[in-house]
Amino acid sequence: MLAVFGHLNPDTDAISAALVYARLLTRQGVEAQAYRLGDLNFETAFVLRELGIDAPPLLPQLAPGSAVALVDHNESAQSVSNLSELDVTRVVDHHKLGDLTTSQPAYLRFEPVGCTGTLLLKLHLEAHLPVEVTDAKLMLSAILSDTLHFRSPTTTQADREAVAFLAPIAGVADVEAYALAMFAAKSDLGDTPAETLLRMDYKVFPFGDAAQPQTMQRWGLGVIETTNPAYVFGRQAELLAAMDQVKAEDGLNGVLLSVVDILNESNRTLVLSATEEKLMREAFGVETVGQVADLGARISRKKQVVPALEAYFAPGTPSV
Amino acid sequence: MLAVFGHLNPDTDAISAALVYARLLTRQGVEAQAYRLGDLNFETAFVLRELGIDAPPLLPQLAPGSAVALVDHNESAQSVSNLSELDVTRVVDHHKLGDLTTSQPAYLRFEPVGCTGTLLLKLHLEAHLPVEVTDAKLMLSAILSDTLHFRSPTTTQADREAVAFLAPIAGVADVEAYALAMFAAKSDLGDTPAETLLRMDYKVFPFGDAAQPQTMQRWGLGVIETTNPAYVFGRQAELLAAMDQVKAEDGLNGVLLSVVDILNESNRTLVLSATEEKLMREAFGVETVGQVADLGARISRKKQVVPALEAYFAPGTPSV
Repeated sequence: MLAVFGHLNPDTDAISAALVYARLLTRQGVEAQAYRLGDLNFETAFVLRELGIDAPPLLPQLAPGSAVALVDHNESAQSVSNLSELDVTRVVDHHKLGDLTTSQPAYLRFEPVGCTGTLLLKLHLEAHLPVEVTDAKLMLSAILSDTLHFRSPTTTQADREAVAFLAPIAGVADVEAYALAMFAAKSDLGDTPAETLLRMDYKVFPFGDAAQPQTMQRWGLGVIETTNPAYVFGRQAELLAAMDQVKAEDGLNGVLLSVVDILNESNRTLVLSATEEKLMREAFGVETVGQVADLGARISRKKQVVPALEAYFAPGTPSV
Repeated sequence: MLAVFGHLNPDTDAISAALVYARLLTRQGVEAQAYRLGDLNFETAFVLRELGIDAPPLLPQLAPGSAVALVDHNESAQSVSNLSELDVTRVVDHHKLGDLTTSQPAYLRFEPVGCTGTLLLKLHLEAHLPVEVTDAKLMLSAILSDTLHFRSPTTTQADREAVAFLAPIAGVADVEAYALAMFAAKSDLGDTPAETLLRMDYKVFPFGDAAQPQTMQRWGLGVIETTNPAYVFGRQAELLAAMDQVKAEDGLNGVLLSVVDILNESNRTLVLSATEEKLMREAFGVETVGQVADLGARISRKKQVVPALEAYFAPGTPSV
């Protein structure tokens, strides 16, 4: 039985892709079971509630050598802790290729599209398999989530076409209204503890020269995408305290929390200390005011924030 | 202009895949040009002569940041020396994933089939593009070459189906006769210098714990696939001298040269020194006699030799 799972701190794409890919493989004769690596965020919980389906179970401890399929991620820092002991036989992803290796030839399918869901739809079409209603809504929701309904610069033509194809199958007549309902659910953060908010869409990235591991830096980059940024900034002090704690717990060089205003397409990032302030200045040319750096329209961690940090930390350039 | 190329010491698949993928991309609106990383072997020269087409040009020095597409390989040790400075935007391959990373999301297409040609046919069919005669014969030749016309354990059902699909398009009525003509051309080694023979199908593999690069070993593994092994063993002394020299030149821990008898499906491997002899004994349980280790039916470097060496050098097991 192949275990299929998305990244740590799962978002709608990570959960949706695990469910859809496991079902696709099963239909193709490969027994597969979807899992998750953490709690659902409020948006994903909303999507599954709308569909009336359960979340995939938490991934149990897998024995070394177990066959696994990764979706929506490939870097070890974003995956299960014993990934290097497992046998990765399949990957479907839309991120850059990180430190993944395989022990045998495997099925790898990466394309530079906005969402794993877009790629999974393509796999259905290539296999001449009809898309089931539940799968259609999962993929649709994932694409709307990852692209912020086409607001993100990660959006491609293939994502737009996939949404146009999937919406009628999923029975979603008003895509904009559905997307806004998803974003509202995501923004309804209530009394969620600050550390949970920080870790909800949080990834650790290694930066620097991989050939000299001892010189590399590890940064934690959190994102809160919301239609209600005022709520988040109302909890700024708590969030900064949580960032301080997470930085120490995870042994990081730095931690940032970007608050992305979905509807206004802007990013104001919480800045913890002088280390992060220096990075904001040197990597983005942005001054920090009151522990907030205004990153303007840079709303995509993947396409706008991480590449700038990679360029900054690249070998041969000065580091923080 | 995207530069498309296969591995160092190109074989028929490396050359064929570069030509076919460059043409496919061009038909899809992506301007691409095929290149090679070395001299043609006699089999590939035969195939191109049969088709009346020129070899792709040698890859010129590319400026850092140039966009490249890799076919039939992905590990840096088997690629252009400045790969880490280039921008890998596409890979089509059927080998395990090695140390490749990309700076941006890319198109990666890996499947565990016997040949890149099989995968390239699939890309044509998915794109609903008719296969041109020349491309059909290139892919057909590559599949027959990589699978030794289905004798190799790397052969999959997809490879067999691809050959059945391609042969009529390529105008090859008698596939077995064509394969034998290819293998005869490959075996007609004449007065080729011993080092050229050794390097004709030669790859360097890193073994051990990638997390501790300083403890890793690098081995050079050459293969001569031939219908005339007596000719090769008639030049055993010369070949051993060339192995000794290549080992020193390339700064390797060890070097092996497998002489694969295509028609009898057997592998007798030339063993240079006590280091290699110890490896044959401990990794394969095979004793060396007169500097030759009889590896029996292990005719696939990729599927039978390299995995055994990886297991042997894996962290936690004793090393040579």
